[in-house]
Amino acid sequence: MNELRFLFAVHNHQPVGNFPAVFERAFRDCYRPFLESVARHPGFRFTAHFSGPLWEHMRERETTCFELVEVMAGRGQLELLSGGFYEPILAVIPEEDRVGQIRMMNDFLRANFGRPPRGLWLTERIWEPHLPKSLAQAGISYTLLDEEHFHYAGVRDMHTTYVTEEEGAALRVFPIDKKLRYLIPFRSLPEVGAYFEEIRAAGGTAILGDDGEKFGLWPGTRSWVFEKGWLESFLCWLDESGVRTMTCGEYFDQTPPAGRVYLPPASYEEMMEWVLEPADQARFQRLKETTPPELRRFLRGGFFRDFFCKYTEANHLHKRMVFVSREVARHAAEDEAARRFLYRGQGNDPYWHGVFGGLYLPHLREAAYTNLLEAEKRTPASGSWREVDYDADGRLEYVRRDSTFGLWVKPAAGGALVEVDHLPSSRNLTDVLARRPEAYHQERSETGGAEGKSIHELGKKLPPEARDLLRYDWHPRYSALDHFFLPGTRVEDVARLEFGEQGDFVTQPYRAEVKGDALLLVRAGGVWVDGERRPVTVRKTIHPAGSCLHVRVEIRNEHPEAFEIAFGAEWNLLAFPHETKIRPKEAVLLDGRLVFRAEGAALWHFPLRTLSQSEEGFDIIEQGVCLIPVWTKRISGGQTVGFDVELKDQDGS
Amino acid sequence: MNELRFLFAVHNHQPVGNFPAVFERAFRDCYRPFLESVARHPGFRFTAHFSGPLWEHMRERETTCFELVEVMAGRGQLELLSGGFYEPILAVIPEEDRVGQIRMMNDFLRANFGRPPRGLWLTERIWEPHLPKSLAQAGISYTLLDEEHFHYAGVRDMHTTYVTEEEGAALRVFPIDKKLRYLIPFRSLPEVGAYFEEIRAAGGTAILGDDGEKFGLWPGTRSWVFEKGWLESFLCWLDESGVRTMTCGEYFDQTPPAGRVYLPPASYEEMMEWVLEPADQARFQRLKETTPPELRRFLRGGFFRDFFCKYTEANHLHKRMVFVSREVARHAAEDEAARRFLYRGQGNDPYWHGVFGGLYLPHLREAAYTNLLEAEKRTPASGSWREVDYDADGRLEYVRRDSTFGLWVKPAAGGALVEVDHLPSSRNLTDVLARRPEAYHQERSETGGAEGKSIHELGKKLPPEARDLLRYDWHPRYSALDHFFLPGTRVEDVARLEFGEQGDFVTQPYRAEVKGDALLLVRAGGVWVDGERRPVTVRKTIHPAGSCLHVRVEIRNEHPEAFEIAFGAEWNLLAFPHETKIRPKEAVLLDGRLVFRAEGAALWHFPLRTLSQSEEGFDIIEQGVCLIPVWTKRISGGQTVGFDVELKDQDGS
Repeated sequence: MNELRFLFAVHNHQPVGNFPAVFERAFRDCYRPFLESVARHPGFRFTAHFSGPLWEHMRERETTCFELVEVMAGRGQLELLSGGFYEPILAVIPEEDRVGQIRMMNDFLRANFGRPPRGLWLTERIWEPHLPKSLAQAGISYTLLDEEHFHYAGVRDMHTTYVTEEEGAALRVFPIDKKLRYLIPFRSLPEVGAYFEEIRAAGGTAILGDDGEKFGLWPGTRSWVFEKGWLESFLCWLDESGVRTMTCGEYFDQTPPAGRVYLPPASYEEMMEWVLEPADQARFQRLKETTPPELRRFLRGGFFRDFFCKYTEANHLHKRMVFVSREVARHAAEDEAARRFLYRGQGNDPYWHGVFGGLYLPHLREAAYTNLLEAEKRTPASGSWREVDYDADGRLEYVRRDSTFGLWVKPAAGGALVEVDHLPSSRNLTDVLARRPEAYHQERSETGGAEGKSIHELGKKLPPEARDLLRYDWHPRYSALDHFFLPGTRVEDVARLEFGEQGDFVTQPYRAEVKGDALLLVRAGGVWVDGERRPVTVRKTIHPAGSCLHVRVEIRNEHPEAFEIAFGAEWNLLAFPHETKIRPKEAVLLDGRLVFRAEGAALWHFPLRTLSQSEEGFDIIEQGVCLIPVWTKRISGGQTVGFDVELKDQDGS
Repeated sequence: MNELRFLFAVHNHQPVGNFPAVFERAFRDCYRPFLESVARHPGFRFTAHFSGPLWEHMRERETTCFELVEVMAGRGQLELLSGGFYEPILAVIPEEDRVGQIRMMNDFLRANFGRPPRGLWLTERIWEPHLPKSLAQAGISYTLLDEEHFHYAGVRDMHTTYVTEEEGAALRVFPIDKKLRYLIPFRSLPEVGAYFEEIRAAGGTAILGDDGEKFGLWPGTRSWVFEKGWLESFLCWLDESGVRTMTCGEYFDQTPPAGRVYLPPASYEEMMEWVLEPADQARFQRLKETTPPELRRFLRGGFFRDFFCKYTEANHLHKRMVFVSREVARHAAEDEAARRFLYRGQGNDPYWHGVFGGLYLPHLREAAYTNLLEAEKRTPASGSWREVDYDADGRLEYVRRDSTFGLWVKPAAGGALVEVDHLPSSRNLTDVLARRPEAYHQERSETGGAEGKSIHELGKKLPPEARDLLRYDWHPRYSALDHFFLPGTRVEDVARLEFGEQGDFVTQPYRAEVKGDALLLVRAGGVWVDGERRPVTVRKTIHPAGSCLHVRVEIRNEHPEAFEIAFGAEWNLLAFPHETKIRPKEAVLLDGRLVFRAEGAALWHFPLRTLSQSEEGFDIIEQGVCLIPVWTKRISGGQTVGFDVELKDQDGS
């Protein structure tokens, strides 16, 4: 009778920038009791991955855990996996950083546990076919992927391993058994045992790779896994069952691959749906339900990179990261600190959104930007405007950095400020997420109740105040946007997106011109007055001057007749409530450090809140504050009027 | 009324190694009359790509054409596209060569026509998402892709352009209108005009990119396009219609992209089916037919790289190419000739097979190998056995090269010689294609007639002798394979694959050991005698000695009882009939230069023929000759017997 081999790989991760209390709870309820349990069963051989943020925390504050890892790794019970140190999506960071982040993890593991890793945990299992080349450069021989990847390639047997390659560099790929992911640790031992027996009888190997947070951190699991003793029973059962546990590396050495595969871009099944627009998610699910199983290999959801089309803000973060990476490579290649900040800023969590927080969590985005700005500050600032297509959209942007502000302007999109960095504090002040439809909004409103799938199983309730949050922005929440409101428009109307836009400036292209320290943006557009389009020219000057950023908008009525305008300059700024105050004439940000003022204007403002999901239910998250100084004025034919906004660093000279 | 812009990009290519007569006919019937026609209409602005083999031929032997190109490029009527010089599939050649091949084309175009190209014709439109990085390195700003690529990304509007990026390097992508590809030059001008009007009315741009061979070289097109005057009428109509023809580069400069896209790996629709196994092609077609159009974006056929799983021989060629590329990069980076031979060996045609020849054409494979061997010969030969996983299959192979022979041995696959190169003539002697099922075999036998789609429209007939060609090999046609035949087996039985294999050696693993100049391959296997498995050890020694390659097989009967064996050493060698002679005791190859001998054996032999398709119908192609020296012998218990094969270079010392 052939023996069943069982490969168990556990992946543990907390994002860069997550709250310290979350790290502490994760170790207390999950990682520590897990390590203690398996350490009591030295016959249980397994493979584990901890992301860099966990290693850093563990080495400083969880020495018991660190020592348990040392002991188990030392006696060969535990094989440690590499990965990008700060858990980036490897396929979407620059190749050099991909190799660098993995080498950073390799070095850490070698320095602390005496041997270099051979396998890699692939962040979110985001696979692209060119990865094996970078992985080989970083000394990696294997990784684990989902069944979905193999389905796409028409592979049927998930109880063995395969080999793929890029430019002749081989990479062994282990398919993660999806059924096992649902059985362990949620089902009874007889159920697990029956499935093991099925695999054994077919001559296969049981391969499991999964999130360690299932062992104590996911709702309800702590009690089930530890207090009710699931894990201990499972380990005892393994000791006696004749199942042979092995590390992935041991299997690698003993058993050659079953064949060659080429895997197209893929991730786990759910991810490939999340990346789709809500309407497409519904369509795709329908298609899956109606397609016979033997034809499912021909179905594909989205492509991970589509998150950068779906979310302007994820795209901006991604392109800024790539930009900083290039600057660091050019100007600070030898600066270890710059590299580490850059790598921290590449941690995957704020770059996408599925059903849990991610991109929707301001503190994760903030951590990414702060780290990227710290890295960027270690590269030279020219202090003058630079013309560059930083986001590769086929249009030129204007960027400028001095010691106070970093400014990113998109002439093609309303001549907007898409990023304003306050460099002394390394904060991106404009890191604000727009409100947009999500598939889980839709499902909710269609079914009208708590029925549904996956996340809905927990029977969460949509909070009553949520209805107002399901209004969706028609443009990204950039800053210095030029609105012409209908007379009588109120701040509540704008907040609820129930207002008429009279001008054609907000999302339209401006012509840009550098004038010394200032950037001049001009658009000859129009304002609709009484059903007639009046030609209007907007000249917007963005002028950084030391500790103060001035933005002056001059509006010229190119028509012989006078008309009245209610001009609003929309700014969307991050606002962690504890550090922001809004007064009648000004807004004070960053605990008083920065003041936003608009001479002679009524200062409209309202919070920008999104409705998103997390493990525990729906979250209402304050993404930022929308500030709109509004000037109401009659302009004669041919007249020009000007309005000023300034953002001042109080600590500046 | 808005004007219709029409972008016409024509792609012309003939493979490295194609017969000179094909080049001549292509220019006479197609490229030359096309160029002459468009040159008479200077108002017709267009974009064109010629692959390197065509440029080389044109410059030497078609100076009229070359001058027409010069004139039209000079007056801005014609924009020339870059591409990998010898038309490789860019995604599957090493990154360095990808950039190198494009730069070679850029340099050629700059040197001959005075300006560097900005756009690129992507070979077979085989797209992978990491390509923009290499393209940017080679100075490329745009390329043309098929609708299929954009469908996958959920893009609906095909009458505009988009931008994609890798690591922040932007690439503009032009969708090729599929309907236009079917209209031009096959349909009447009113039909073309009506579709143009449809595009114009919707405010779009008509974008066509297609094979130039449609204009004269495809069956029936010469008469239609030139003699019956379709092209001249079309050009006159364009001159008068108010349609504005533009080069792609002019459009690029005038019109920014409509949006951002991320395209997963793709090619044109048909290619994504050809790469599937025959049964999967049928399944996938059924699925496409039953899926509503709005859900088709979620359907995917195969992945181009799967050709390397589907065809062992394409995989071997690909991995040898990658191997040679690495050797050239390491040891002959400055050797221009080595680089050019390598690039020639990367021309895409013999690396895959759809419905036309490609991989099935021995002269194209020969050209690839000969060029690769010429490149390899410019790198140092160690003259000793090297252990290397050259094909990235997760197993070690043994390779050796001296001045006469290059030897490639796969212990894991029957201890076979998978490649024997004769280096003085730069020929891969073992470049033989196995017989395998193709979708067009299946369709044929199912419908029993000439009905069907695409290629079947021409009503081709399956030749009567074809039935015998639809027997499929159960192993790749490697050499030095160890067969144990049932007594009474005849050569016809083996040729028809109607024989019993008594041993378990042909596809099974051998242990390998280097002994000086010789490689020893040992397998303790078995031979079935009267329903009983007898333990047998085969020790195969591959021993190159100057101009002679010896292969000795020693068979030891590990059982106490005697039995009779009919041992056959299968070799599959290329055989262009005009240069091969087979006599009772020996085979003479390469016009008498090489002699294959097997002392004391009956020399069985039969031709290996495949049934494949080409533009004109079914082709029966002689892929090589199967040589099987057979020794019949009784072996006592414990006895060892030995058999010898030698391959001798007659010109050697």
